[in-house]
Amino acid sequence: MKLTTHEATTTTAQSQLPLDGRPRAVIEGVTPEVDAGRFPIKRVIGDRVIVEADIFADGHDQISADLLYRVTGATEWMRTPFTPLVNDRWRGEFTVDQLGRYQYTIVAWVDHLKTWRHDFERRLAAGSHSLIDIKIGAGYIAAHAGRAAGEDVAILADWARELAESTDLDTATDAALDDLRLATALAYPDATLQSRYARELEIVVDRERARFSSWYELFPRSTGRDGVYGTFSDVERLLPYIAEMGFNVLYLPPIHPIGQSFRKGPNNNVISEPGDPGSPWAIGAAAGGHTSIHPELGTLDEFRHLVAAAAEHGLEMALDIALQTSPDHPYVREHPEWFRWRPDNTVQYAENPPKKYQDIYPFEFETDAWRELWEELRGVFLFWIEQGVRIFRVDNPHTKPFAFWEWLISSLKAEHPDLIFLSESFTRPKVMYRLAKLGFTQSYTYFTWRNTAWEIREYLSEITSPPLSDYFRPNLWPNTPDILNEYLQSGRRPAFIARLILAATLGANYGIYGPAFELLEHVPAEPGKEEYLNSEKYQLRQWDLDRPDSLRDLIAQVNRIRNENRELHQNQTLHFHTIDNPSMVAYSKSDTERQNVMLTIVNLDPYHTHSGWVDLDLDDLGIDESHPYQAHDLLTGDRYLWSGRRNFIQLSPGALPAHIFKLRRHLHTEHDFDYFM
Amino acid sequence: MKLTTHEATTTTAQSQLPLDGRPRAVIEGVTPEVDAGRFPIKRVIGDRVIVEADIFADGHDQISADLLYRVTGATEWMRTPFTPLVNDRWRGEFTVDQLGRYQYTIVAWVDHLKTWRHDFERRLAAGSHSLIDIKIGAGYIAAHAGRAAGEDVAILADWARELAESTDLDTATDAALDDLRLATALAYPDATLQSRYARELEIVVDRERARFSSWYELFPRSTGRDGVYGTFSDVERLLPYIAEMGFNVLYLPPIHPIGQSFRKGPNNNVISEPGDPGSPWAIGAAAGGHTSIHPELGTLDEFRHLVAAAAEHGLEMALDIALQTSPDHPYVREHPEWFRWRPDNTVQYAENPPKKYQDIYPFEFETDAWRELWEELRGVFLFWIEQGVRIFRVDNPHTKPFAFWEWLISSLKAEHPDLIFLSESFTRPKVMYRLAKLGFTQSYTYFTWRNTAWEIREYLSEITSPPLSDYFRPNLWPNTPDILNEYLQSGRRPAFIARLILAATLGANYGIYGPAFELLEHVPAEPGKEEYLNSEKYQLRQWDLDRPDSLRDLIAQVNRIRNENRELHQNQTLHFHTIDNPSMVAYSKSDTERQNVMLTIVNLDPYHTHSGWVDLDLDDLGIDESHPYQAHDLLTGDRYLWSGRRNFIQLSPGALPAHIFKLRRHLHTEHDFDYFM
Repeated sequence: MKLTTHEATTTTAQSQLPLDGRPRAVIEGVTPEVDAGRFPIKRVIGDRVIVEADIFADGHDQISADLLYRVTGATEWMRTPFTPLVNDRWRGEFTVDQLGRYQYTIVAWVDHLKTWRHDFERRLAAGSHSLIDIKIGAGYIAAHAGRAAGEDVAILADWARELAESTDLDTATDAALDDLRLATALAYPDATLQSRYARELEIVVDRERARFSSWYELFPRSTGRDGVYGTFSDVERLLPYIAEMGFNVLYLPPIHPIGQSFRKGPNNNVISEPGDPGSPWAIGAAAGGHTSIHPELGTLDEFRHLVAAAAEHGLEMALDIALQTSPDHPYVREHPEWFRWRPDNTVQYAENPPKKYQDIYPFEFETDAWRELWEELRGVFLFWIEQGVRIFRVDNPHTKPFAFWEWLISSLKAEHPDLIFLSESFTRPKVMYRLAKLGFTQSYTYFTWRNTAWEIREYLSEITSPPLSDYFRPNLWPNTPDILNEYLQSGRRPAFIARLILAATLGANYGIYGPAFELLEHVPAEPGKEEYLNSEKYQLRQWDLDRPDSLRDLIAQVNRIRNENRELHQNQTLHFHTIDNPSMVAYSKSDTERQNVMLTIVNLDPYHTHSGWVDLDLDDLGIDESHPYQAHDLLTGDRYLWSGRRNFIQLSPGALPAHIFKLRRHLHTEHDFDYFM
Repeated sequence: MKLTTHEATTTTAQSQLPLDGRPRAVIEGVTPEVDAGRFPIKRVIGDRVIVEADIFADGHDQISADLLYRVTGATEWMRTPFTPLVNDRWRGEFTVDQLGRYQYTIVAWVDHLKTWRHDFERRLAAGSHSLIDIKIGAGYIAAHAGRAAGEDVAILADWARELAESTDLDTATDAALDDLRLATALAYPDATLQSRYARELEIVVDRERARFSSWYELFPRSTGRDGVYGTFSDVERLLPYIAEMGFNVLYLPPIHPIGQSFRKGPNNNVISEPGDPGSPWAIGAAAGGHTSIHPELGTLDEFRHLVAAAAEHGLEMALDIALQTSPDHPYVREHPEWFRWRPDNTVQYAENPPKKYQDIYPFEFETDAWRELWEELRGVFLFWIEQGVRIFRVDNPHTKPFAFWEWLISSLKAEHPDLIFLSESFTRPKVMYRLAKLGFTQSYTYFTWRNTAWEIREYLSEITSPPLSDYFRPNLWPNTPDILNEYLQSGRRPAFIARLILAATLGANYGIYGPAFELLEHVPAEPGKEEYLNSEKYQLRQWDLDRPDSLRDLIAQVNRIRNENRELHQNQTLHFHTIDNPSMVAYSKSDTERQNVMLTIVNLDPYHTHSGWVDLDLDDLGIDESHPYQAHDLLTGDRYLWSGRRNFIQLSPGALPAHIFKLRRHLHTEHDFDYFM
């Protein structure tokens, strides 16, 4: 169907006569839409995409509008009608059921046939209807017949004739009110009078893992027995341990050969001793670069074996890609044009003056050879994709050009729409959001530094609401190898539990850096810093995974609750509730049909028992205020009988600092008793 | 200068390599911008246009950005630098000093020279600077020298050489810190690395009357002596009366021949008697149509004489254009193709079923002959423009297509940028806002129905804040010939005074329909309706302008206050203050430099004296909390000594229900006394 592009005109040309001045509907205020369509929105397969717009025309005529959508590249649009809400706002929706990109846009028109019918009913109600009015309708129906197809042509032509030729008002009125034939006719609108929205908006449709994932980060080299350099086989041995905790993504820091030049010693010492393993992020040595494997970890075959073994445990492999080199990387010799050279003929190392990071060379993205550099780096991803990796955690993407990432992710996902990219960017908010807009599937957040109830409520509300949530998918981490927050340093076990439960229930995507997390590793390299003492970044560690104080069982329980309750698989329904103690936080997630509700309440003070009255927004939860309901704590199994908005909560850090409730609406009453009726 | 258009790429092409991948800055979140640049913003001549944007790049390099602007159609852009605010937000500004359209856009780039200097200062502070660092800077400066012009070439080349060849660190450091030559160099950035915002945004620059106007509406035919049909000469006789009240726009309802068919009698009676004058909006008769003058009002020459005479009194003529016809309009005979025909070979009259308006024919804008219709209607405006009219009050624009108005106003203003169009649309908000976006200079509002403090605060805040205020200019009317609000019906004199002062001080643009207003006309056609009894729309009225209870002197005083205080010439600084009595409202306007403040406080209850404590936002007013200040009531001349935020107010409807204060900051203290020092 040919569509008029009335809305596509630009401001500067408004004093020219338009191509066709007759389309009268206007379409504006379209949501979702990121930066006027500059970037796609993100959804996962199976999602209902809900599109709203302000649609109206001059005068008092009735409007019709269709939502058009298609897989990007398809020639035909699919259509679904918009329905009016209030205040000229309209809504339409469709389901995305295939990976990759979709497009959507809107057409709208003044619908004369619908207007005629609407007005006819009002005339009828006032007793002022006439045969003339019916003949006018016959004219519109005849026009629809002229655009109809198949047997509808005759059906509509007959209807038009019937109305036009009728001489009995009552008979004609009955025929004019024929809903069935009206519906048939409305399917053939006059396309020449249609306005079309100026933009075709895009959707990136990801697989479900993009929305719901539980990450476990692990340094492979620390998995060896008795202090020996760990190997991929050692990691395989740990797969049951990780899988039993309920994770579904296993993320490894870089596995490539590590440079010798300016290698860092333990605790980031600028001097290293022979035998010090160096930082895995100082990538590249004689043994190879970004497509090579550190010889002590194993071979490429062994890596592929690990990927397959992990999959058998329900664990998907995520690799860390850090686009930087050590001075010993083969690129430095083979492609000097990809680096910035100093007047003393040395390569410019990374620095943030006066700090110097001489073990790291950044790429020079402003090189004339940028095309070759981009293609080479794309090849790094393609190499690991060939080894079976589909999830990449990208190191510091905010220090490489935005245009590069946009091209890289778009072009890789064009061929592999199941890829997931996690942006490891802890920088200024607009930079982080831009990386999400341009294509990163998930993003690290400031969650690590949001430890008070007010901070948690403000920040999580911001990052889980539109328009941000249309493109930014938070992945919440209580700790990372770079960040041991003061809350964990000082709060010990109750703090670890609180942060675990917050991350796992606030974020559909979350992760921990283990075994440091479950083993309550909490000593900083120095007071006031967030670096771990004896960080695995610079040395091998041995972990006693069977320590009795390990959080592994609690983690397993929390992940089981996550896995079994779909309410926690998305952030869209996250809703904070008031609690009258500022050391506590309460929030719920419903499933998208609002049938089931999970309510989490956390005591954020690791030192003291706190109690308070939670004031639940029962309207949001869809719970009837006048009926009792059950709060079933899935952590302890305890069941509480509640009623109304306000309920009492007490949580002791010495026991468990949190409830994860499933709220159950239906409680038995006498009406359910067998002999009641 | 050639500019790279990195930002102009569209989403669908992101998997293609960009033309140039090296520009690294991104520009987003630009304000002001209406619907992603689909519509221009509005400003008046002399305004500073303040543009903000989020501008940033990857990494930690320094950014520079320029705001580009030009009169639309000019080949060269003018430039002014952006300066950073906080959180990656930048600001630039320029003055619009000519009527018509302007464009603006943004370029931004990673500035290596600025980065080098910034880093060098940090190295210097840490004592880690070196000759190598200085040589790197020399390289950047040499590149700038290569792009420089005139004598700057040599200046910069010398500087580069000086730095490159220096062997003494202290000397070289001094030279590296040369601010003067740095400023010279920074003027020659590397255009190949610049990103440019995807859109060129537009501004419509109007004359000052668009922002500040005081309208007086008058039915000319009611100005005759002794009940005789009034003429343009009679209106001329009233010019001193209107001018002395301080208005600057005189607006006349349609002055064209009035149809006989289905002519309405007094009080909208469907039957008229011979001699009934009919509604001026039923345009067109044997004597002519939209470019003719009702024979009893006078001739075209007399109209032109009135326009000139009004101008001599400081009154600009505004004409009402209603694009509809009576059944007797010459168009019906000459252009039947511009109307919709019914099966009984009659023209479709206006109706809102079951209501019929048989005295009015709407144009059929969906006619195949729409181009001829549009051009003809444009000709109507051009005709009156030729008679000296520059202000048009457009009747019910929301019942004619948006595309028509956009073209009409754009094309007329392209030749006559001093035109002002007031949109008389009292319909759903998005429709009213669309009309403003597409070009109407001013708009009627819901002010007429906003009579309580809460309503006034909410509504006025909405319509005077960005983004709405970037394109919507409210014109506030306490009454119109169609709307006698219940507040005026029942509240009598204090109500009229309160509404006058609210309209005149809340809105830089306001108007009254007189003499009904100043003569306190308040009886509705029937209880519960807003139509006037014996409305001038359907009959001649005689007004006794010298009645002792007339508000003319108060109106004159209020308009004098408006005219003498520039704070009231704009809405941008409107700020509501808390007052602890819900029957009272308090708000201020400062001038844009925040030097002078007008504070208005109104008792909205026409029946009772009210008092309350106003809590002034002294931060917004720029008043020092610790110093007393003077509140000078410009209505009464009374002066009050105030200090701090909270001050007591009492207003009696029997006296004056409002204060219009000028706040005066400087009060004399002992320090000002001649002999103090």
